Amino acid sequence: MLPVPKKYFITAASAEGKSKLTAFDNALLKAGIGNVNLVRVSSILPPEAEFTPGLKIAPGSLVPTAYGSIVSEIPGETIAAAVAVGVSEDSFGVIMEFTGKCSKEEAEATITRMVEEAFEVRGMALKEVKVNAVEHKVEKIGCAFAAAPLWY
Amino acid sequence: MLPVPKKYFITAASAEGKSKLTAFDNALLKAGIGNVNLVRVSSILPPEAEFTPGLKIAPGSLVPTAYGSIVSEIPGETIAAAVAVGVSEDSFGVIMEFTGKCSKEEAEATITRMVEEAFEVRGMALKEVKVNAVEHKVEKIGCAFAAAPLWY
Amino acid sequence: MLPVPKKYFITAASAEGKSKLTAFDNALLKAGIGNVNLVRVSSILPPEAEFTPGLKIAPGSLVPTAYGSIVSEIPGETIAAAVAVGVSEDSFGVIMEFTGKCSKEEAEATITRMVEEAFEVRGMALKEVKVNAVEHKVEKIGCAFAAAPLWY
Repeated sequence: MLPVPKKYFITAASAEGKSKLTAFDNALLKAGIGNVNLVRVSSILPPEAEFTPGLKIAPGSLVPTAYGSIVSEIPGETIAAAVAVGVSEDSFGVIMEFTGKCSKEEAEATITRMVEEAFEVRGMALKEVKVNAVEHKVEKIGCAFAAAPLWY
Repeated sequence: MLPVPKKYFITAASAEGKSKLTAFDNALLKAGIGNVNLVRVSSILPPEAEFTPGLKIAPGSLVPTAYGSIVSEIPGETIAAAVAVGVSEDSFGVIMEFTGKCSKEEAEATITRMVEEAFEVRGMALKEVKVNAVEHKVEKIGCAFAAAPLWY
Repeated sequence: MLPVPKKYFITAASAEGKSKLTAFDNALLKAGIGNVNLVRVSSILPPEAEFTPGLKIAPGSLVPTAYGSIVSEIPGETIAAAVAVGVSEDSFGVIMEFTGKCSKEEAEATITRMVEEAFEVRGMALKEVKVNAVEHKVEKIGCAFAAAPLWY
């Protein structure tokens, strides 16, 4: 089987680019994970995974990551991305991502409700919610990005 | 290299949620794979992979999965998701996913034709098609989901 | 951790199909990677990864792949997909994908600029750009696909 991740952190950033994909690439760079290969996952924090901010990952690594991303080409538009990790006392957790045309505060409120719903539906007690969000006012081509990379 | 999966099953379910992503999360829970990390793949059944319904997978595991998902916010709308696995006599198989605004029966008919086309274009004989499908009448925010998780 | 890929190649192809997903499947077959499980990644060439055209990969394998895909159901429409790998002298590289309703030449020009931007923003010197692109005039349901599979 594929190895189960043991560490995680959360990050969010925004950027402009000359194209949609390079705006995304630039946002990843600002988020500190622009030089690895994101492998998108949906979106469970493995039991005992340890919160490890500032983790360094070698370039080119395959990094299981729950993420959300929004790109806009409408100058002046505000876009936002948020990630939240709901942590339980002694079991796995749940990761949620949200993107929208809204403020950072709205994104944070929405994502927090999403994590609460995910714990409620599982009948699990929510010990803590970690949230990271960003908003971006588009100049030309902008991207807002939020992620929970999982690592080893 | 990444280890080649040796087991699989198919599943389909639908659910409502308070947001698009939690509707998706709830559908995954009903499908029995809500507490793992789906890693989306396109979409070959490895040779000798064994059909293993009822497989239990530990929370947080990285699970290679071919899946389709549709979310609707239009009350009263019917949405459907289907997955099909075409099995060959002695080689690999092909997995197809389909989602649409249609009935379960239409989704099943469509996905079966898709598997037949995939075998025909490969010049392979189709031994069996396993299908799982679901339809959902949207109340507020609904998700229909169908998947073929691959495992070890 | 997941093993870091050591080889790569690039490929592009287009095809018709009876449905969107089988058009995609047929394009993958023509691209030589129709019988493996693509695991989508974003999109870094690992350091020391070796360019290995003509690589054979066993059916059902999980293959980390940066790719772009476009499907059209508008007869007569021209669609294109391109992939480019920017190679550095002695470090990692960057992979870009592009799809659009344009010619192969436009896709090639766009993707080359995207790789140049990705190197510029990283402050890295670009040693070489490998490009592969395809255009397709839609008959009924067409798909254009371009990819950089990473392997071991």
